[in-house]
Amino acid sequence: MNRDAAIGVFDSGVGGLTVLRALREKLPEENLLYLGDTARLPYGTKSARSVLQYALQATRILDKRGIKMLVIACNTASAYALDALSETHPDLPVVGVIAPGAQAACETSKSGRIGVLATESTVRAGAYEKSIANMRSGAEVHSSASPLLVGLAEEGWLAGEVPEAVIRHYLGALTEKFAPGQMDCLLLGCTHFPVLAKSIEKIAGPDVALVDSAHTTAIEVEKILGANQLRRSGGGQIRFLATDGVARFARVGGVFLGKPLEPDQVELVDL
Amino acid sequence: MNRDAAIGVFDSGVGGLTVLRALREKLPEENLLYLGDTARLPYGTKSARSVLQYALQATRILDKRGIKMLVIACNTASAYALDALSETHPDLPVVGVIAPGAQAACETSKSGRIGVLATESTVRAGAYEKSIANMRSGAEVHSSASPLLVGLAEEGWLAGEVPEAVIRHYLGALTEKFAPGQMDCLLLGCTHFPVLAKSIEKIAGPDVALVDSAHTTAIEVEKILGANQLRRSGGGQIRFLATDGVARFARVGGVFLGKPLEPDQVELVDL
Repeated sequence: MNRDAAIGVFDSGVGGLTVLRALREKLPEENLLYLGDTARLPYGTKSARSVLQYALQATRILDKRGIKMLVIACNTASAYALDALSETHPDLPVVGVIAPGAQAACETSKSGRIGVLATESTVRAGAYEKSIANMRSGAEVHSSASPLLVGLAEEGWLAGEVPEAVIRHYLGALTEKFAPGQMDCLLLGCTHFPVLAKSIEKIAGPDVALVDSAHTTAIEVEKILGANQLRRSGGGQIRFLATDGVARFARVGGVFLGKPLEPDQVELVDL
Repeated sequence: MNRDAAIGVFDSGVGGLTVLRALREKLPEENLLYLGDTARLPYGTKSARSVLQYALQATRILDKRGIKMLVIACNTASAYALDALSETHPDLPVVGVIAPGAQAACETSKSGRIGVLATESTVRAGAYEKSIANMRSGAEVHSSASPLLVGLAEEGWLAGEVPEAVIRHYLGALTEKFAPGQMDCLLLGCTHFPVLAKSIEKIAGPDVALVDSAHTTAIEVEKILGANQLRRSGGGQIRFLATDGVARFARVGGVFLGKPLEPDQVELVDL
Protein backbone atom coordinates (compact mmCIF):
# COMPACT_ATOMS: atom_id res chain seq x y z
CA MET A 1 0.00 0.00 0.00
CA ASN A 2 1.33 3.40 -0.99
CA ARG A 3 0.44 5.84 1.77
CA ASP A 4 0.51 8.74 -0.67
CA ALA A 5 -2.11 7.14 -2.92
CA ALA A 6 -5.66 8.48 -2.89
CA ILE A 7 -8.61 7.01 -1.04
CA GLY A 8 -11.16 5.86 -3.62
CA VAL A 9 -14.78 6.75 -2.96
CA PHE A 10 -17.57 5.28 -5.05
CA ASP A 11 -21.29 5.96 -5.33
CA SER A 12 -24.09 5.54 -7.85
CA GLY A 13 -24.09 9.31 -8.35
CA VAL A 14 -23.75 12.37 -6.17
CA GLY A 15 -25.18 11.13 -2.83
CA GLY A 16 -21.78 9.78 -1.80
CA LEU A 17 -20.43 13.32 -1.81
CA THR A 18 -21.93 13.66 1.68
CA VAL A 19 -19.43 10.95 2.72
CA LEU A 20 -16.62 12.57 0.73
CA ARG A 21 -17.27 15.78 2.62
CA ALA A 22 -16.94 14.02 5.98
CA LEU A 23 -13.69 12.36 4.83
CA ARG A 24 -12.37 15.74 3.75
CA GLU A 25 -13.13 17.25 7.14
CA LYS A 26 -11.75 14.33 9.14
CA LEU A 27 -8.68 13.62 6.99
CA PRO A 28 -7.74 16.89 5.26
CA GLU A 29 -4.28 15.64 4.19
CA GLU A 30 -5.65 12.71 2.18
CA ASN A 31 -6.09 12.77 -1.58
CA LEU A 32 -9.57 11.63 -2.54
CA LEU A 33 -10.67 10.13 -5.86
CA TYR A 34 -14.45 10.06 -6.25
CA LEU A 35 -16.36 8.07 -8.86
CA GLY A 36 -20.08 8.65 -9.45
CA ASP A 37 -21.75 6.07 -11.71
CA THR A 38 -24.19 8.64 -13.08
CA ALA A 39 -24.74 6.63 -16.29
CA ARG A 40 -26.65 3.99 -14.35
CA LEU A 41 -28.02 5.73 -11.27
CA PRO A 42 -30.00 5.19 -9.17
CA TYR A 43 -28.93 1.87 -7.65
CA GLY A 44 -31.69 1.89 -5.05
CA THR A 45 -34.31 0.32 -7.33
CA LYS A 46 -31.96 -2.07 -9.15
CA SER A 47 -31.46 -5.79 -8.48
CA ALA A 48 -28.66 -7.27 -6.35
CA ARG A 49 -27.17 -8.74 -9.52
CA SER A 50 -26.93 -5.42 -11.35
CA VAL A 51 -25.68 -3.47 -8.33
CA LEU A 52 -22.93 -6.05 -7.79
CA GLN A 53 -21.89 -5.92 -11.44
CA TYR A 54 -21.78 -2.11 -11.44
CA ALA A 55 -19.79 -2.03 -8.18
CA LEU A 56 -17.19 -4.43 -9.58
CA GLN A 57 -16.77 -2.31 -12.72
CA ALA A 58 -16.47 0.92 -10.75
CA THR A 59 -13.93 -0.59 -8.36
CA ARG A 60 -11.84 -1.81 -11.30
CA ILE A 61 -11.57 1.75 -12.61
CA LEU A 62 -10.60 3.20 -9.24
CA ASP A 63 -8.16 0.37 -8.55
CA LYS A 64 -6.42 0.95 -11.90
CA ARG A 65 -5.75 4.54 -10.84
CA GLY A 66 -3.88 3.28 -7.78
CA ILE A 67 -5.99 3.85 -4.69
CA LYS A 68 -4.90 2.68 -1.25
CA MET A 69 -8.39 2.03 0.05
CA LEU A 70 -11.98 1.92 -1.18
CA VAL A 71 -15.00 3.53 0.45
CA ILE A 72 -18.39 2.38 -0.89
CA ALA A 73 -20.30 5.59 -0.25
CA CYS A 74 -23.64 4.10 -1.30
CA ASN A 75 -25.86 2.11 1.02
CA THR A 76 -27.31 -0.14 -1.67
CA ALA A 77 -23.87 -1.01 -3.07
CA SER A 78 -22.58 -1.57 0.48
CA ALA A 79 -25.47 -3.95 1.13
CA TYR A 80 -24.94 -6.01 -2.02
CA ALA A 81 -21.28 -5.70 -3.00
CA LEU A 82 -19.06 -5.22 0.07
CA ASP A 83 -18.23 -8.91 0.56
CA ALA A 84 -17.64 -9.54 -3.14
CA LEU A 85 -15.38 -6.50 -3.49
CA SER A 86 -13.31 -7.59 -0.48
CA GLU A 87 -12.90 -11.04 -2.05
CA THR A 88 -12.03 -9.82 -5.54
CA HIS A 89 -9.60 -7.18 -4.21
CA PRO A 90 -7.86 -8.91 -1.27
CA ASP A 91 -5.11 -6.27 -1.08
CA LEU A 92 -7.51 -3.33 -1.00
CA PRO A 93 -9.16 -2.42 2.30
CA VAL A 94 -12.86 -1.87 1.58
CA VAL A 95 -15.24 0.04 3.84
CA GLY A 96 -18.99 0.34 3.32
CA VAL A 97 -21.44 2.73 4.93
CA ILE A 98 -23.82 0.18 6.50
CA ALA A 99 -21.76 -0.85 9.54
CA PRO A 100 -20.69 2.75 10.33
CA GLY A 101 -24.31 3.89 10.04
CA ALA A 102 -25.47 1.05 12.28
CA GLN A 103 -22.79 1.98 14.79
CA ALA A 104 -23.85 5.63 14.81
CA ALA A 105 -27.45 4.58 15.46
CA CYS A 106 -26.49 2.18 18.26
CA GLU A 107 -24.41 4.87 19.96
CA THR A 108 -27.15 7.47 19.68
CA SER A 109 -30.32 5.54 20.49
CA LYS A 110 -31.24 5.26 24.18
CA SER A 111 -34.32 3.07 23.71
CA GLY A 112 -32.76 0.78 21.08
CA ARG A 113 -35.78 1.46 18.87
CA ILE A 114 -34.20 2.55 15.62
CA GLY A 115 -35.98 3.53 12.41
CA VAL A 116 -34.26 3.47 9.02
CA LEU A 117 -35.16 5.40 5.88
CA ALA A 118 -33.41 3.85 2.89
CA THR A 119 -33.82 2.84 -0.74
CA GLU A 120 -36.03 -0.01 -1.85
CA SER A 121 -33.04 -2.31 -2.50
CA THR A 122 -31.30 -1.54 0.81
CA VAL A 123 -34.53 -2.26 2.69
CA ARG A 124 -35.02 -5.49 0.72
CA ALA A 125 -31.50 -6.61 1.71
CA GLY A 126 -32.34 -6.16 5.41
CA ALA A 127 -28.86 -4.70 5.72
CA TYR A 128 -29.38 -2.43 8.72
CA GLU A 129 -31.49 -4.95 10.63
CA LYS A 130 -28.65 -7.48 10.39
CA SER A 131 -25.87 -5.02 11.14
CA ILE A 132 -27.58 -3.50 14.20
CA ALA A 133 -28.54 -6.94 15.53
CA ASN A 134 -24.82 -7.80 15.51
CA MET A 135 -23.95 -4.71 17.52
CA ARG A 136 -26.77 -4.38 20.02
CA SER A 137 -28.85 -7.31 21.13
CA GLY A 138 -32.47 -6.50 21.86
CA ALA A 139 -32.54 -3.55 19.48
CA GLU A 140 -35.78 -3.13 17.53
CA VAL A 141 -35.17 -1.97 13.96
CA HIS A 142 -37.66 -1.20 11.23
CA SER A 143 -36.99 0.21 7.77
CA SER A 144 -39.09 2.03 5.23
CA ALA A 145 -38.25 2.35 1.56
CA SER A 146 -38.28 6.04 0.67
CA PRO A 147 -37.46 6.15 -3.03
CA LEU A 148 -38.85 9.61 -3.75
CA LEU A 149 -36.41 11.18 -1.29
CA VAL A 150 -33.65 10.32 -3.74
CA GLY A 151 -35.41 12.25 -6.49
CA LEU A 152 -36.05 15.24 -4.23
CA ALA A 153 -32.42 15.31 -3.13
CA GLU A 154 -31.20 15.00 -6.72
CA GLU A 155 -33.42 17.92 -7.74
CA GLY A 156 -32.17 20.01 -4.82
CA TRP A 157 -35.81 20.30 -3.71
CA LEU A 158 -35.00 20.22 -0.02
CA ALA A 159 -37.64 22.23 1.84
CA GLY A 160 -41.26 23.35 1.59
CA GLU A 161 -44.63 21.75 1.08
CA VAL A 162 -43.67 18.89 -1.22
CA PRO A 163 -40.57 17.53 0.53
CA GLU A 164 -42.37 17.81 3.87
CA ALA A 165 -45.43 15.94 2.57
CA VAL A 166 -43.23 13.17 1.14
CA ILE A 167 -41.23 12.90 4.37
CA ARG A 168 -44.44 12.84 6.43
CA HIS A 169 -45.70 9.95 4.29
CA TYR A 170 -42.58 7.81 4.69
CA LEU A 171 -42.02 8.68 8.35
CA GLY A 172 -45.63 7.86 9.11
CA ALA A 173 -45.23 4.41 7.57
CA LEU A 174 -42.07 3.91 9.62
CA THR A 175 -43.15 5.13 13.05
CA GLU A 176 -46.35 3.09 13.01
CA LYS A 177 -44.17 -0.04 13.09
CA PHE A 178 -43.09 0.95 16.63
CA ALA A 179 -45.13 1.38 19.79
CA PRO A 180 -46.14 5.07 19.97
CA GLY A 181 -43.28 7.39 20.87
CA GLN A 182 -40.70 4.62 21.22
CA MET A 183 -38.53 5.23 18.16
CA ASP A 184 -35.85 7.65 19.37
CA CYS A 185 -33.34 7.41 16.54
CA LEU A 186 -33.77 7.78 12.81
CA LEU A 187 -30.98 6.49 10.62
CA LEU A 188 -30.66 8.07 7.18
CA GLY A 189 -29.75 4.90 5.32
CA CYS A 190 -29.02 6.46 1.94
CA THR A 191 -26.19 8.90 1.29
CA HIS A 192 -28.63 11.18 -0.55
CA PHE A 193 -30.73 11.85 2.52
CA PRO A 194 -28.47 14.07 4.70
CA VAL A 195 -29.18 17.08 2.42
CA LEU A 196 -32.83 16.71 3.47
CA ALA A 197 -31.96 16.48 7.18
CA LYS A 198 -33.49 19.82 8.18
CA SER A 199 -36.87 18.97 6.70
CA ILE A 200 -36.72 15.43 8.12
CA GLU A 201 -35.89 16.81 11.60
CA LYS A 202 -38.80 19.21 11.38
CA ILE A 203 -41.26 16.37 10.70
CA ALA A 204 -39.67 13.82 13.04
CA GLY A 205 -39.78 16.21 15.99
CA PRO A 206 -37.36 16.87 18.84
CA ASP A 207 -37.62 13.39 20.43
CA VAL A 208 -36.03 11.62 17.46
CA ALA A 209 -32.28 11.96 16.90
CA LEU A 210 -31.09 11.84 13.27
CA VAL A 211 -27.91 9.99 12.38
CA ASP A 212 -26.18 9.14 9.13
CA SER A 213 -23.13 7.17 8.03
CA ALA A 214 -20.85 9.97 6.87
CA HIS A 215 -19.02 10.90 10.07
CA THR A 216 -18.64 7.34 11.44
CA THR A 217 -17.45 6.13 8.03
CA ALA A 218 -14.67 8.75 8.13
CA ILE A 219 -13.70 7.54 11.62
CA GLU A 220 -13.65 3.92 10.39
CA VAL A 221 -11.43 4.90 7.44
CA GLU A 222 -9.00 6.63 9.80
CA LYS A 223 -8.93 3.58 12.06
CA ILE A 224 -8.29 1.11 9.23
CA LEU A 225 -5.54 3.14 7.62
CA GLY A 226 -3.88 3.60 11.00
CA ALA A 227 -0.86 5.76 11.78
CA ASN A 228 1.33 3.98 9.20
CA GLN A 229 -0.91 4.54 6.21
CA LEU A 230 -2.42 7.94 6.90
CA ARG A 231 -0.91 10.70 4.90
CA ARG A 232 0.86 13.32 7.01
CA SER A 233 1.01 16.30 4.69
CA GLY A 234 1.07 17.62 1.17
CA GLY A 235 -2.14 16.04 -0.09
CA GLY A 236 -5.67 17.36 0.16
CA GLN A 237 -6.52 17.03 -3.53
CA ILE A 238 -9.97 15.87 -4.62
CA ARG A 239 -10.60 14.50 -8.11
CA PHE A 240 -13.99 13.62 -9.54
CA LEU A 241 -14.89 10.99 -12.11
CA ALA A 242 -18.39 10.46 -13.50
CA THR A 243 -19.72 7.95 -16.01
CA ASP A 244 -22.23 10.39 -17.51
CA GLY A 245 -23.26 14.05 -17.65
CA VAL A 246 -20.39 15.98 -16.05
CA ALA A 247 -22.37 19.25 -16.22
CA ARG A 248 -25.25 17.69 -14.30
CA PHE A 249 -22.84 16.04 -11.87
CA ALA A 250 -21.25 19.39 -11.09
CA ARG A 251 -24.57 21.19 -10.74
CA VAL A 252 -26.27 18.63 -8.51
CA GLY A 253 -23.05 17.62 -6.77
CA GLY A 254 -22.54 21.10 -5.40
CA VAL A 255 -25.66 20.66 -3.25
CA PHE A 256 -24.20 17.54 -1.66
CA LEU A 257 -20.65 18.78 -1.37
CA GLY A 258 -21.84 22.02 0.21
CA LYS A 259 -19.82 24.14 -2.20
CA PRO A 260 -19.94 24.92 -5.94
CA LEU A 261 -18.39 22.41 -8.31
CA GLU A 262 -17.44 23.29 -11.91
CA PRO A 263 -17.93 20.87 -14.84
CA ASP A 264 -14.21 21.09 -15.73
CA GLN A 265 -13.37 19.60 -12.34
CA VAL A 266 -15.15 16.39 -13.36
CA GLU A 267 -13.64 13.81 -15.73
CA LEU A 268 -15.94 11.64 -17.87
CA VAL A 269 -15.01 7.94 -17.75
CA ASP A 270 -16.40 4.87 -19.50
CA LEU A 271 -17.06 1.68 -17.56
CA MET B 1 -40.01 -7.51 -44.00
CA ASN B 2 -41.85 -10.50 -42.58
CA ARG B 3 -45.43 -9.44 -41.91
CA ASP B 4 -45.78 -12.11 -39.22
CA ALA B 5 -42.82 -10.77 -37.24
CA ALA B 6 -43.44 -8.83 -34.05
CA ILE B 7 -43.40 -5.07 -33.65
CA GLY B 8 -40.53 -4.17 -31.31
CA VAL B 9 -41.27 -1.62 -28.60
CA PHE B 10 -38.48 -0.16 -26.51
CA ASP B 11 -38.40 2.05 -23.41
CA SER B 12 -36.07 2.83 -20.51
CA GLY B 13 -38.39 0.88 -18.23
CA VAL B 14 -42.12 0.49 -17.78
CA GLY B 15 -43.43 3.87 -18.99
CA GLY B 16 -43.52 2.63 -22.59
CA LEU B 17 -46.16 0.10 -21.58
CA THR B 18 -48.69 2.93 -21.96
CA VAL B 19 -47.75 2.92 -25.66
CA LEU B 20 -47.79 -0.88 -25.82
CA ARG B 21 -51.31 -0.79 -24.47
CA ALA B 22 -52.45 1.59 -27.21
CA LEU B 23 -50.79 -0.62 -29.85
CA ARG B 24 -52.55 -3.63 -28.42
CA GLU B 25 -55.93 -1.92 -28.63
CA LYS B 26 -55.38 -0.50 -32.11
CA LEU B 27 -53.68 -3.54 -33.63
CA PRO B 28 -54.89 -6.60 -31.72
CA GLU B 29 -53.59 -9.08 -34.32
CA GLU B 30 -49.99 -7.94 -34.08
CA ASN B 31 -47.36 -9.71 -31.99
CA LEU B 32 -45.53 -7.26 -29.75
CA LEU B 33 -42.04 -7.63 -28.28
CA TYR B 34 -41.35 -5.13 -25.51
CA LEU B 35 -37.92 -4.34 -24.07
CA GLY B 36 -37.55 -2.26 -20.88
CA ASP B 37 -33.98 -1.19 -20.10
CA THR B 38 -34.59 -1.34 -16.36
CA ALA B 39 -30.88 -1.83 -15.61
CA ARG B 40 -30.18 1.76 -16.61
CA LEU B 41 -33.42 3.65 -16.12
CA PRO B 42 -34.32 6.45 -15.99
CA TYR B 43 -33.12 7.99 -19.27
CA GLY B 44 -34.68 11.37 -18.51
CA THR B 45 -31.71 12.67 -16.52
CA LYS B 46 -28.99 11.06 -18.63
CA SER B 47 -26.86 12.70 -21.32
CA ALA B 48 -27.57 12.56 -25.07
CA ARG B 49 -24.46 10.40 -25.47
CA SER B 50 -25.58 7.76 -22.97
CA VAL B 51 -29.19 7.68 -24.16
CA LEU B 52 -28.00 7.17 -27.73
CA GLN B 53 -25.65 4.35 -26.72
CA TYR B 54 -28.38 2.61 -24.70
CA ALA B 55 -30.90 2.93 -27.53
CA LEU B 56 -28.47 1.39 -30.02
CA GLN B 57 -27.83 -1.57 -27.72
CA ALA B 58 -31.53 -2.14 -27.06
CA THR B 59 -32.36 -1.96 -30.76
CA ARG B 60 -29.66 -4.50 -31.53
CA ILE B 61 -31.30 -7.00 -29.16
CA LEU B 62 -34.77 -6.47 -30.60
CA ASP B 63 -33.49 -6.57 -34.17
CA LYS B 64 -31.74 -9.91 -33.50
CA ARG B 65 -35.08 -11.39 -32.50
CA GLY B 66 -36.51 -10.48 -35.89
CA ILE B 67 -38.87 -7.53 -35.53
CA LYS B 68 -40.56 -5.92 -38.53
CA MET B 69 -40.66 -2.43 -37.03
CA LEU B 70 -39.34 -0.51 -34.02
CA VAL B 71 -41.34 1.84 -31.79
CA ILE B 72 -39.26 3.99 -29.46
CA ALA B 73 -41.80 4.28 -26.64
CA CYS B 74 -39.67 6.73 -24.65
CA ASN B 75 -39.66 10.46 -25.27
CA THR B 76 -36.06 11.00 -24.24
CA ALA B 77 -34.79 8.19 -26.48
CA SER B 78 -37.00 9.47 -29.33
CA ALA B 79 -35.48 12.93 -28.91
CA TYR B 80 -31.87 11.74 -28.97
CA ALA B 81 -31.77 8.47 -30.91
CA LEU B 82 -34.47 8.36 -33.60
CA ASP B 83 -32.28 9.69 -36.44
CA ALA B 84 -29.31 7.51 -35.49
CA LEU B 85 -31.45 4.37 -35.25
CA SER B 86 -32.98 5.04 -38.67
CA GLU B 87 -29.47 5.41 -40.10
CA THR B 88 -27.99 2.32 -38.45
CA HIS B 89 -31.04 0.17 -39.32
CA PRO B 90 -32.04 1.32 -42.82
CA ASP B 91 -34.30 -1.70 -43.37
CA LEU B 92 -36.21 -1.25 -40.13
CA PRO B 93 -39.02 1.31 -39.99
CA VAL B 94 -38.52 3.31 -36.78
CA VAL B 95 -41.22 5.39 -35.10
CA GLY B 96 -40.69 7.63 -32.08
CA VAL B 97 -43.28 9.21 -29.80
CA ILE B 98 -42.33 12.87 -30.25
CA ALA B 99 -43.93 13.52 -33.66
CA PRO B 100 -47.14 11.62 -32.79
CA GLY B 101 -47.38 13.53 -29.50
CA ALA B 102 -46.82 16.83 -31.28
CA GLN B 103 -49.50 15.90 -33.80
CA ALA B 104 -52.00 15.05 -31.05
CA ALA B 105 -51.35 18.41 -29.43
CA CYS B 106 -51.71 20.34 -32.70
CA GLU B 107 -55.00 18.61 -33.46
CA THR B 108 -56.37 19.24 -29.99
CA SER B 109 -55.27 22.80 -29.21
CA LYS B 110 -57.56 25.60 -30.40
CA SER B 111 -55.36 28.49 -29.25
CA GLY B 112 -52.07 26.95 -30.38
CA ARG B 113 -50.69 27.59 -26.89
CA ILE B 114 -49.35 24.20 -25.89
CA GLY B 115 -47.65 23.28 -22.65
CA VAL B 116 -45.40 20.22 -22.33
CA LEU B 117 -44.47 18.27 -19.20
CA ALA B 118 -41.46 16.09 -19.90
CA THR B 119 -38.17 14.83 -18.49
CA GLU B 120 -35.15 17.04 -18.01
CA SER B 121 -33.38 15.59 -21.06
CA THR B 122 -36.40 15.83 -23.38
CA VAL B 123 -36.88 19.47 -22.38
CA ARG B 124 -33.17 20.18 -22.91
CA ALA B 125 -33.41 18.71 -26.42
CA GLY B 126 -36.23 21.14 -27.30
CA ALA B 127 -37.82 18.19 -29.06
CA TYR B 128 -41.48 19.21 -28.83
CA GLU B 129 -40.83 22.85 -29.61
CA LYS B 130 -39.14 21.82 -32.88
CA SER B 131 -41.68 19.19 -33.83
CA ILE B 132 -44.73 21.38 -33.18
CA ALA B 133 -43.14 24.33 -35.03
CA ASN B 134 -42.88 22.07 -38.10
CA MET B 135 -46.56 21.18 -37.92
CA ARG B 136 -48.26 24.39 -36.92
CA SER B 137 -46.74 27.79 -37.58
CA GLY B 138 -47.48 30.40 -34.95
CA ALA B 139 -47.90 27.85 -32.18
CA GLU B 140 -46.52 28.87 -28.80
CA VAL B 141 -44.92 25.97 -26.95
CA HIS B 142 -43.30 25.90 -23.54
CA SER B 143 -41.94 22.91 -21.65
CA SER B 144 -41.25 22.19 -18.01
CA ALA B 145 -39.00 19.44 -16.73
CA SER B 146 -40.99 17.35 -14.27
CA PRO B 147 -38.56 14.69 -13.08
CA LEU B 148 -40.38 13.74 -9.88
CA LEU B 149 -43.45 12.67 -11.84
CA VAL B 150 -41.39 9.74 -13.12
CA GLY B 151 -40.66 8.63 -9.57
CA LEU B 152 -44.29 9.01 -8.52
CA ALA B 153 -45.48 7.00 -11.52
CA GLU B 154 -42.86 4.30 -10.88
CA GLU B 155 -44.02 4.01 -7.27
CA GLY B 156 -47.65 3.82 -8.34
CA TRP B 157 -48.26 6.87 -6.15
CA LEU B 158 -50.87 8.35 -8.46
CA ALA B 159 -53.34 10.36 -6.35
CA GLY B 160 -53.58 12.27 -3.12
CA GLU B 161 -51.76 15.11 -1.39
CA VAL B 162 -48.22 14.43 -2.58
CA PRO B 163 -48.80 13.79 -6.30
CA GLU B 164 -51.13 16.79 -6.42
CA ALA B 165 -48.62 19.07 -4.71
CA VAL B 166 -45.87 17.95 -7.11
CA ILE B 167 -48.14 18.43 -10.14
CA ARG B 168 -49.22 21.86 -8.87
CA HIS B 169 -45.56 22.85 -8.60
CA TYR B 170 -44.62 21.81 -12.14
CA LEU B 171 -47.85 23.03 -13.74
CA GLY B 172 -47.45 26.39 -12.00
CA ALA B 173 -43.97 26.78 -13.48
CA LEU B 174 -45.36 25.88 -16.91
CA THR B 175 -48.52 27.99 -17.05
CA GLU B 176 -46.72 31.14 -15.92
CA LYS B 177 -44.80 31.03 -19.20
CA PHE B 178 -48.07 31.77 -21.03
CA ALA B 179 -50.38 34.75 -20.84
CA PRO B 180 -53.03 33.95 -18.17
CA GLY B 181 -55.58 31.37 -19.32
CA GLN B 182 -54.11 30.97 -22.81
CA MET B 183 -52.61 27.48 -22.57
CA ASP B 184 -55.43 25.18 -23.67
CA CYS B 185 -53.52 21.94 -24.25
CA LEU B 186 -51.14 20.04 -22.03
CA LEU B 187 -48.96 17.43 -23.70
CA LEU B 188 -47.72 14.61 -21.46
CA GLY B 189 -44.27 14.35 -22.99
CA CYS B 190 -43.09 11.28 -21.09
CA THR B 191 -44.63 7.84 -21.43
CA HIS B 192 -44.73 7.55 -17.62
CA PHE B 193 -47.15 10.43 -17.19
CA PRO B 194 -50.47 9.04 -18.54
CA VAL B 195 -50.92 6.97 -15.36
CA LEU B 196 -51.03 10.31 -13.49
CA ALA B 197 -53.55 11.81 -15.93
CA LYS B 198 -56.46 11.96 -13.49
CA SER B 199 -54.49 13.93 -10.92
CA ILE B 200 -53.00 16.17 -13.61
CA GLU B 201 -56.49 16.87 -15.03
CA LYS B 202 -57.75 17.76 -11.58
CA ILE B 203 -55.02 20.38 -11.11
CA ALA B 204 -55.00 21.67 -14.70
CA GLY B 205 -58.74 22.30 -14.68
CA PRO B 206 -61.45 21.85 -17.32
CA ASP B 207 -60.07 24.46 -19.77
CA VAL B 208 -56.91 22.49 -20.48
CA ALA B 209 -57.10 19.36 -22.66
CA LEU B 210 -54.60 16.60 -21.90
CA VAL B 211 -52.98 14.66 -24.72
CA ASP B 212 -50.27 12.03 -24.89
CA SER B 213 -48.43 10.12 -27.60
CA ALA B 214 -49.83 6.63 -27.12
CA HIS B 215 -52.89 6.69 -29.36
CA THR B 216 -51.36 8.75 -32.20
CA THR B 217 -48.25 6.55 -32.13
CA ALA B 218 -50.43 3.48 -32.68
CA ILE B 219 -52.12 5.24 -35.62
CA GLU B 220 -48.71 6.12 -37.07
CA VAL B 221 -47.55 2.51 -36.74
CA GLU B 222 -50.65 1.31 -38.56
CA LYS B 223 -50.09 3.86 -41.32
CA ILE B 224 -46.41 2.95 -41.83
CA LEU B 225 -47.03 -0.79 -41.90
CA GLY B 226 -49.86 -0.30 -44.34
CA ALA B 227 -52.23 -2.97 -45.61
CA ASN B 228 -49.40 -5.15 -46.95
CA GLN B 229 -47.49 -5.47 -43.72
CA LEU B 230 -50.23 -5.52 -41.11
CA ARG B 231 -50.93 -8.91 -39.70
CA ARG B 232 -54.44 -10.14 -40.44
CA SER B 233 -54.97 -12.85 -37.86
CA GLY B 234 -53.44 -15.43 -35.56
CA GLY B 235 -51.11 -13.13 -33.61
CA GLY B 236 -51.85 -11.07 -30.54
CA GLN B 237 -48.96 -12.36 -28.44
CA ILE B 238 -47.05 -9.99 -26.19
CA ARG B 239 -43.58 -10.84 -24.89
CA PHE B 240 -41.62 -8.83 -22.36
CA LEU B 241 -37.86 -8.44 -21.99
CA ALA B 242 -36.18 -6.49 -19.21
CA THR B 243 -32.51 -5.83 -18.51
CA ASP B 244 -32.95 -5.94 -14.73
CA GLY B 245 -35.34 -6.90 -11.95
CA VAL B 246 -38.11 -8.91 -13.62
CA ALA B 247 -40.10 -9.04 -10.36
CA ARG B 248 -40.06 -5.26 -10.07
CA PHE B 249 -40.82 -4.90 -13.80
CA ALA B 250 -43.90 -7.10 -13.40
CA ARG B 251 -45.08 -5.34 -10.25
CA VAL B 252 -44.66 -1.78 -11.52
CA GLY B 253 -45.46 -2.67 -15.11
CA GLY B 254 -48.95 -3.82 -14.19
CA VAL B 255 -49.83 -0.22 -13.24
CA PHE B 256 -48.88 0.99 -16.71
CA LEU B 257 -50.31 -1.91 -18.62
CA GLY B 258 -53.61 -1.62 -16.75
CA LYS B 259 -53.64 -5.32 -15.86
CA PRO B 260 -51.56 -7.63 -13.65
CA LEU B 261 -48.27 -8.92 -15.02
CA GLU B 262 -46.47 -11.96 -13.55
CA PRO B 263 -42.66 -12.17 -13.20
CA ASP B 264 -42.55 -15.37 -15.25
CA GLN B 265 -43.96 -13.45 -18.22
CA VAL B 266 -40.78 -11.33 -18.28
CA GLU B 267 -37.45 -12.56 -19.65
CA LEU B 268 -34.21 -11.14 -18.25
CA VAL B 269 -31.76 -10.11 -20.99
CA ASP B 270 -28.22 -8.72 -20.92
CA LEU B 271 -27.24 -5.79 -23.11
